[in-house]
Amino acid sequence: MLTYIYILAITAEAMSGALAAGRRNMDMFGVSVIAFITALGGGTIRDILLGHFPVSWTQHPEYIYLTVSAGLITMLIARFMHHLHKIFLLLDAMGLIAFTIIGCNVALELGYSTPIVVMAGMITGIFGGILRDVLCQRVPVVFRHELYASISLLVALLYLQLEQMGLNHDLNLILSFATGIMMRVAAIYWHWSLPVFSYAPGRWK
Amino acid sequence: MLTYIYILAITAEAMSGALAAGRRNMDMFGVSVIAFITALGGGTIRDILLGHFPVSWTQHPEYIYLTVSAGLITMLIARFMHHLHKIFLLLDAMGLIAFTIIGCNVALELGYSTPIVVMAGMITGIFGGILRDVLCQRVPVVFRHELYASISLLVALLYLQLEQMGLNHDLNLILSFATGIMMRVAAIYWHWSLPVFSYAPGRWK
Amino acid sequence: MLTYIYILAITAEAMSGALAAGRRNMDMFGVSVIAFITALGGGTIRDILLGHFPVSWTQHPEYIYLTVSAGLITMLIARFMHHLHKIFLLLDAMGLIAFTIIGCNVALELGYSTPIVVMAGMITGIFGGILRDVLCQRVPVVFRHELYASISLLVALLYLQLEQMGLNHDLNLILSFATGIMMRVAAIYWHWSLPVFSYAPGRWK
Repeated sequence: MLTYIYILAITAEAMSGALAAGRRNMDMFGVSVIAFITALGGGTIRDILLGHFPVSWTQHPEYIYLTVSAGLITMLIARFMHHLHKIFLLLDAMGLIAFTIIGCNVALELGYSTPIVVMAGMITGIFGGILRDVLCQRVPVVFRHELYASISLLVALLYLQLEQMGLNHDLNLILSFATGIMMRVAAIYWHWSLPVFSYAPGRWK
Repeated sequence: MLTYIYILAITAEAMSGALAAGRRNMDMFGVSVIAFITALGGGTIRDILLGHFPVSWTQHPEYIYLTVSAGLITMLIARFMHHLHKIFLLLDAMGLIAFTIIGCNVALELGYSTPIVVMAGMITGIFGGILRDVLCQRVPVVFRHELYASISLLVALLYLQLEQMGLNHDLNLILSFATGIMMRVAAIYWHWSLPVFSYAPGRWK
Repeated sequence: MLTYIYILAITAEAMSGALAAGRRNMDMFGVSVIAFITALGGGTIRDILLGHFPVSWTQHPEYIYLTVSAGLITMLIARFMHHLHKIFLLLDAMGLIAFTIIGCNVALELGYSTPIVVMAGMITGIFGGILRDVLCQRVPVVFRHELYASISLLVALLYLQLEQMGLNHDLNLILSFATGIMMRVAAIYWHWSLPVFSYAPGRWK
């Protein structure tokens, strides 16, 4: 099940990358690269930080084709995408949760301690978007808008807690997933967000 | 032969890095770092992604000296460089092709599959410039202008195809190299470029 | 001794990250991430480049808590921080020197050659700040202002020279540290800086 959701997820992330590239008037190649990096960059950074070689996508070239195709198709259908805005946000939320849980699993299998497992989940969930925003010259969205990364954190904690309590693995997946999606939808709907830190000194280092 | 071209290539890339740093009014140190990263950053990212340790330049400190020197010398000769514009573009094209072929070879030796070998070639070819542009606060040039990364892709595909057909290695090198240079020169001369994706929504995630 | 200074150092770096995040109006989560990356990013990049796995902080979750806490506390006390400006600059200088020496030690233990050991020291010293500035959309401060990275370089060279001369290790630590701090304080006080390279062509690649 996680694999299917993962495929949906990287497709959605690749499309969000393509749209960001389009806002910077990139060419087809730039769109492909940003789509690929947005979709698979989080998992790549996780693998490198955890010393988990070979990096996942090097063993699954089909994910390269999928994300690049999703990026290119986005170029064609972008004009219709505001009609799909809600579906897109939902796919994006599914991606965030699926990436988080997959990231936790990778770190668990490598025997890392709980805080690092949680970090691995969050890094997988959010760093694709951070790389996208850095390459497209934006302050990362994930640091500023409605609850997003925090939901990745909460899902990681919930998933690990239920796992340690010995809950059936599939049940845990379903529960963590549903909770995460609901939290994200609620955050978007009611504009939940974290306190913002605004610092504007006269002159400072 | 590839080694000599490689040395020319990292010199040219280091100079392009230094010029980008100069446009941001960086100091001598910044120029050195950007020169180094532009020249050797692509290979570094390739090595890390492929789990190929130790990273190449850590075994060749002479390349560190070379790229830093090239960056510093660029500070002195920059005012004359527009006279050398064409030579510079040619060196840059040679760098792109040499980096691509070297990147393919590294991945081939590590036993990666064909799509990853092609990716390794392209990453070596273009990521130095991407890092340069991110550090100098620009949207990466490679995602926007005349065919550049696409040529890296085509050269990688050609080189691998000829290799698989059992062509003599040196002949393959010469053929792939000449084809790449000609394509790049043609792309600059006739302003070949890929379709651009411009996306400007009212308000979007 | 180096451990205590290291703890002070990552706290100071985390605070500088939090202030940079505040200037971009990031939320609590963004502040935490930038604080963490500013403090531990330099060491992380060093570990990855040297193939030194597992990455240090994955074995010391307490540093994650420390840097995130320092970032969040900075949100509360930022309004008072201009009173602490001088202490803060001193802590930052201590961080730079401590990071540099620690970075050299890591590369020495892994058996790298002298130029790479020096690079490892500098990367540990300055890359946290570079990542902070890239994520906060600034041209890295370290490439532009008073001597900073150069001091990291000089400290690394001094430390290695004294080590090779067979000086007592603790004495070397104290000497290198004191020299570094004095140089940095002098650089700030007298505005020592490197020549700047300003390049503004009409139109260039």
